[in-house]
Amino acid sequence: MRVAVVGASGYVGGELLRLLLQHPGVELTAATSKGHAGEYLFRVHPNLRGVSEMKFASYNLAKLTNIADIVFTALPHGESVKLIPSLTKAGLRIVDMSADFRLRDASNYKMWYGYDHPATDVLEKFVYAVPELNRDRIRLARFAASPGCMAITSILALAPLLEDRSFGVDSDHIVVDAKVGSSGSGGKASLSTHFSERYNVVRPYKPAGHRHSAEIEQVLAEVSGAPVKVSMSAHAVNMVRGILSTCHVFMDKVPEAVDLWKAYRRAYRGSYFVRLVRDKDGPFRLPDPKTVIGSNFCDIGFELEERTHRVVALGATDNLIKGAAGNAIQTMNLMCGLDEKEGLAYAPLHPV
Amino acid sequence: MRVAVVGASGYVGGELLRLLLQHPGVELTAATSKGHAGEYLFRVHPNLRGVSEMKFASYNLAKLTNIADIVFTALPHGESVKLIPSLTKAGLRIVDMSADFRLRDASNYKMWYGYDHPATDVLEKFVYAVPELNRDRIRLARFAASPGCMAITSILALAPLLEDRSFGVDSDHIVVDAKVGSSGSGGKASLSTHFSERYNVVRPYKPAGHRHSAEIEQVLAEVSGAPVKVSMSAHAVNMVRGILSTCHVFMDKVPEAVDLWKAYRRAYRGSYFVRLVRDKDGPFRLPDPKTVIGSNFCDIGFELEERTHRVVALGATDNLIKGAAGNAIQTMNLMCGLDEKEGLAYAPLHPV
Amino acid sequence: MRVAVVGASGYVGGELLRLLLQHPGVELTAATSKGHAGEYLFRVHPNLRGVSEMKFASYNLAKLTNIADIVFTALPHGESVKLIPSLTKAGLRIVDMSADFRLRDASNYKMWYGYDHPATDVLEKFVYAVPELNRDRIRLARFAASPGCMAITSILALAPLLEDRSFGVDSDHIVVDAKVGSSGSGGKASLSTHFSERYNVVRPYKPAGHRHSAEIEQVLAEVSGAPVKVSMSAHAVNMVRGILSTCHVFMDKVPEAVDLWKAYRRAYRGSYFVRLVRDKDGPFRLPDPKTVIGSNFCDIGFELEERTHRVVALGATDNLIKGAAGNAIQTMNLMCGLDEKEGLAYAPLHPV
Amino acid sequence: MRVAVVGASGYVGGELLRLLLQHPGVELTAATSKGHAGEYLFRVHPNLRGVSEMKFASYNLAKLTNIADIVFTALPHGESVKLIPSLTKAGLRIVDMSADFRLRDASNYKMWYGYDHPATDVLEKFVYAVPELNRDRIRLARFAASPGCMAITSILALAPLLEDRSFGVDSDHIVVDAKVGSSGSGGKASLSTHFSERYNVVRPYKPAGHRHSAEIEQVLAEVSGAPVKVSMSAHAVNMVRGILSTCHVFMDKVPEAVDLWKAYRRAYRGSYFVRLVRDKDGPFRLPDPKTVIGSNFCDIGFELEERTHRVVALGATDNLIKGAAGNAIQTMNLMCGLDEKEGLAYAPLHPV
Repeated sequence: MRVAVVGASGYVGGELLRLLLQHPGVELTAATSKGHAGEYLFRVHPNLRGVSEMKFASYNLAKLTNIADIVFTALPHGESVKLIPSLTKAGLRIVDMSADFRLRDASNYKMWYGYDHPATDVLEKFVYAVPELNRDRIRLARFAASPGCMAITSILALAPLLEDRSFGVDSDHIVVDAKVGSSGSGGKASLSTHFSERYNVVRPYKPAGHRHSAEIEQVLAEVSGAPVKVSMSAHAVNMVRGILSTCHVFMDKVPEAVDLWKAYRRAYRGSYFVRLVRDKDGPFRLPDPKTVIGSNFCDIGFELEERTHRVVALGATDNLIKGAAGNAIQTMNLMCGLDEKEGLAYAPLHPV
Repeated sequence: MRVAVVGASGYVGGELLRLLLQHPGVELTAATSKGHAGEYLFRVHPNLRGVSEMKFASYNLAKLTNIADIVFTALPHGESVKLIPSLTKAGLRIVDMSADFRLRDASNYKMWYGYDHPATDVLEKFVYAVPELNRDRIRLARFAASPGCMAITSILALAPLLEDRSFGVDSDHIVVDAKVGSSGSGGKASLSTHFSERYNVVRPYKPAGHRHSAEIEQVLAEVSGAPVKVSMSAHAVNMVRGILSTCHVFMDKVPEAVDLWKAYRRAYRGSYFVRLVRDKDGPFRLPDPKTVIGSNFCDIGFELEERTHRVVALGATDNLIKGAAGNAIQTMNLMCGLDEKEGLAYAPLHPV
Repeated sequence: MRVAVVGASGYVGGELLRLLLQHPGVELTAATSKGHAGEYLFRVHPNLRGVSEMKFASYNLAKLTNIADIVFTALPHGESVKLIPSLTKAGLRIVDMSADFRLRDASNYKMWYGYDHPATDVLEKFVYAVPELNRDRIRLARFAASPGCMAITSILALAPLLEDRSFGVDSDHIVVDAKVGSSGSGGKASLSTHFSERYNVVRPYKPAGHRHSAEIEQVLAEVSGAPVKVSMSAHAVNMVRGILSTCHVFMDKVPEAVDLWKAYRRAYRGSYFVRLVRDKDGPFRLPDPKTVIGSNFCDIGFELEERTHRVVALGATDNLIKGAAGNAIQTMNLMCGLDEKEGLAYAPLHPV
Repeated sequence: MRVAVVGASGYVGGELLRLLLQHPGVELTAATSKGHAGEYLFRVHPNLRGVSEMKFASYNLAKLTNIADIVFTALPHGESVKLIPSLTKAGLRIVDMSADFRLRDASNYKMWYGYDHPATDVLEKFVYAVPELNRDRIRLARFAASPGCMAITSILALAPLLEDRSFGVDSDHIVVDAKVGSSGSGGKASLSTHFSERYNVVRPYKPAGHRHSAEIEQVLAEVSGAPVKVSMSAHAVNMVRGILSTCHVFMDKVPEAVDLWKAYRRAYRGSYFVRLVRDKDGPFRLPDPKTVIGSNFCDIGFELEERTHRVVALGATDNLIKGAAGNAIQTMNLMCGLDEKEGLAYAPLHPV
């Protein structure tokens, strides 16, 4: 399969390149970048030195249609939406990494992203891709939007609780408290990402109004069949990769642990990339981003607190892999009839 | 004033020593340790090399009463309670760092700490010391319990919201999501604190049932005049010092920012060690432990989310200072008629 | 090929398991551990959860000879030497990770490791495996000793300078100043690896007398044809994986950069896992362990200082991969007639 | 004493402000900044929130002479030299933090800094201030240049070895291998200081030609009475504060440890801020920047290697304190007749 990455100079683009170059079913035919056209990939992504001699290309639609069957678009929000309609018309399959095609209700773009969606007809054709939840729809899709990194991590932790109505989740008081590494905010230098200012922080950079709330609410409403409100806060912590999403969920009556366990098992049976983690001892008895780094795994676990009628559901991912490039390639695999795991079944690095 | 530290070999003990050695109104007369008696302080606390030639002493009550006016007890929970009754009888003033004298309702010790409190008559004489909330009672006290590090950080962030009944806080759904550095779990080596296993983690080490919940609930019930339930989760993050407590508080109607601001100002007017942080821009526009390290400050801020009826109240401290040794010395200052700030008014280090 | 790992519970053992489980030409048939026999691999190596359902086995020579063609021994120094003679007699191929079979001159064991080598006849049969330097000998070997992590990193940086006699290296004043992550000192918890004590250090843990000096001198003497003295100092720095070896080499007259460049190119032509790094700009214009993490690459570069007659040769590796497990598997590939790169050609992760 | 800081918005400026605001003998009368005039200090230095309500001022020579007795200039190299001649004429005492007045031989500026020194008459009046080495000259000086952070750390480690001619140091092969935290490179954001690119590095950013070589050679030549060549390499490591300077020194015959120990003791008797560190055990048996953070201490230690005729001398400082602001204030204290320790005798923070 011939694959191109449009907007390949950022961290998500770089991670797509790394994984695609190693994917046995993929031929990487182009990596475009406005600012770096003509440069070797490894000048921007130093890990690719010795791995590929490819150079960044300029974006050229005609050329792209000749050399690619499927395109990953890793552009900023607002940029993707300008480019993608022409790509769809050209007959290319697309996995978009931006938020521009994630929200089903076009009117939500005004509220969350500040613009009127200019291509609602195209928007309708996109599937929001969480393979563990909607594998079958993805298999039939030509266009997919890969979720936000904190969104997918939280969704996978929460969905089984909302799906089973018998748990009686209080859908007005779902708190998602996310902790994210620096790569989640991209590769652009600024004072707030300056090492001396960023090291050792626990920075509440978006305690309210985080855009990923919209995606999480959208999916949870679907799986539960009723509106859901998500109270999300995002924190930057002292690491490069990884997300832990701590989801505080209230219920009238906290279920038995065994019943929760069953619900999670049922939900993720057959989903290789979700690992359920709930051990009696050891340093990693619950999900922790440390043990997924370098892999496409999403670790899920939970803890109960009867006293406060609370389930704490936990999700951990490598934000650049299951939170971005890995999930997108998993989506591509499904769209193209490959095994979901192909080119993705790497064990995490430990320790790292 | 002649001061002794009992149990001075741990991190809290070491921080007490560091601050007391520099305190202009204090003469440090003894530092006891079971395991290190006879050794130089600086063999255990390498920062004190060149600062003090004192050695650890064995614990000896008779001697202590001769050389000290006030004693800090920095012993493990369950140990303090065995020692303190004899200290009180000997006429010494005490600031206890353990949890053994923090909970007013003795029956709570069974539930939270697994033992029947053996000295309820002594327990009654202790004041739970949050100088910013009960300065006057501390001034009159002979015995004080210094709060848990996450407790005081969360209490200072939450109290003004609960104190003002007009905010209509939903006291059943208060979520406290705390992120803590490694020094909070002490100086004892284990697999889970082994550097290779601990670096880069976001470890949900106590997602439910954290003991500091009890202290927070106790104080919030007092300030609000009604029972309060706190849903607390604690996470270990990749740093040594610092706590960020993210407190998710639901209300029927989210107030105007200006009214919240007024409530916080009113609550902490005259409290040097609480800084209100809510800027329009910059990397540190909200509380972040990074900017309090090395100081006794507790930074407090908040963000509003109307859509979810939520106030996110944020507290940040250096867990070993305002979260432990600093608050205890501030308490001592008040108990002994000194200026609250004496020996404590250090600016944080930045960057660090 | 059927492969077993003896002593698989440490970090090197874990990394061997991770790589071997993903190696297309390998069937992992056993992983032994004294302390963890009967436990799932993933209880000790949390990254392997979901990757393998294998359990640790007890060591059993008879069984091993039935199920394995080649064995990796990842035991402590002094333990390996007790076990290996019986393995060699049983006809198994061996790649040993310890130091017990690295030094050609048996008398050196007394000096560097404090014991008289008990199996000098076996020692003779081992090849010290640096594939980039002695690929052909490895192909013919049945028994190989994989170098120390700092040794191989320094050797690859230095060898081309010593090999070419025309450079006139001053072999009495070669300084190797190494900086290593925590995983290099293994998985056993102690006060000095306790996170709070280990974070942020630049700890000169072995400024003189480091045992890897012996290996480096051995190889450099071979390539240069004359005795070489190496003045080595090792430092623990604030990261988990990675080594930078800074090699200060004095010469009568510093050569032109282009001539050095040629020497390095010549030495490593055809060696996929050595990347020469010497760019004009960018954050990674010289070797840095950050850009090799997760890979078997050794990055090599240099800088010249005419004024002091000095070449600074730099080597960077992931200490657990090219510094240990990766190099060992590369060695196995050669010993078994596979492509050197098989199961090893992963791109590094970036950023991480 | 009335003190002003010119160029107070950088990290060295910020550290000067922090220390001067807490200095009992100092009244801080102005802090100037081109880019931030009119802003509160704490907008730039978030640690100073609540500590000072001062604002940055514009630079104004006339005003400065009215309100200050002594001025710290914390400007970039090349800027200081333009400003300082007018300050000296105005009768102000000066401690300069830049390199512009450090090198005694004006012709060296061309070689190391690329400019012809425009004020050699002023240069002559400056003393290069290492209080531990030239306390008496500083006491008489009106103008002082505070050394570079790596320079002073290395000088203090090396001077006693060079001072005592009987050690027979090989002055052609002195290797200084320095490891520095990020704050050493200042507060300006760039790709190479972007957190995701800077975290976890061991970056050889200046393996040859480091400018601090010139300062070290200048001082060592003075103390030894003969020319000295320093082969310096500087590395950026994964922390914000701290320097470890590893100095590899060759000698014909390595002395007894006890004789070295005596030399160091003799050199630094009476120097409160130098601590000699050489313990038998413990995690901090040799100098490590971790145990000096937050203090003006320079820890010094050494190790011997007879086999290679080498002494490894080690120096550790907090680069912003003893490596910059602290040493400058110590210098000011001496110039102004105060106790050298005044406002500086803080114990380091540990752990941090």
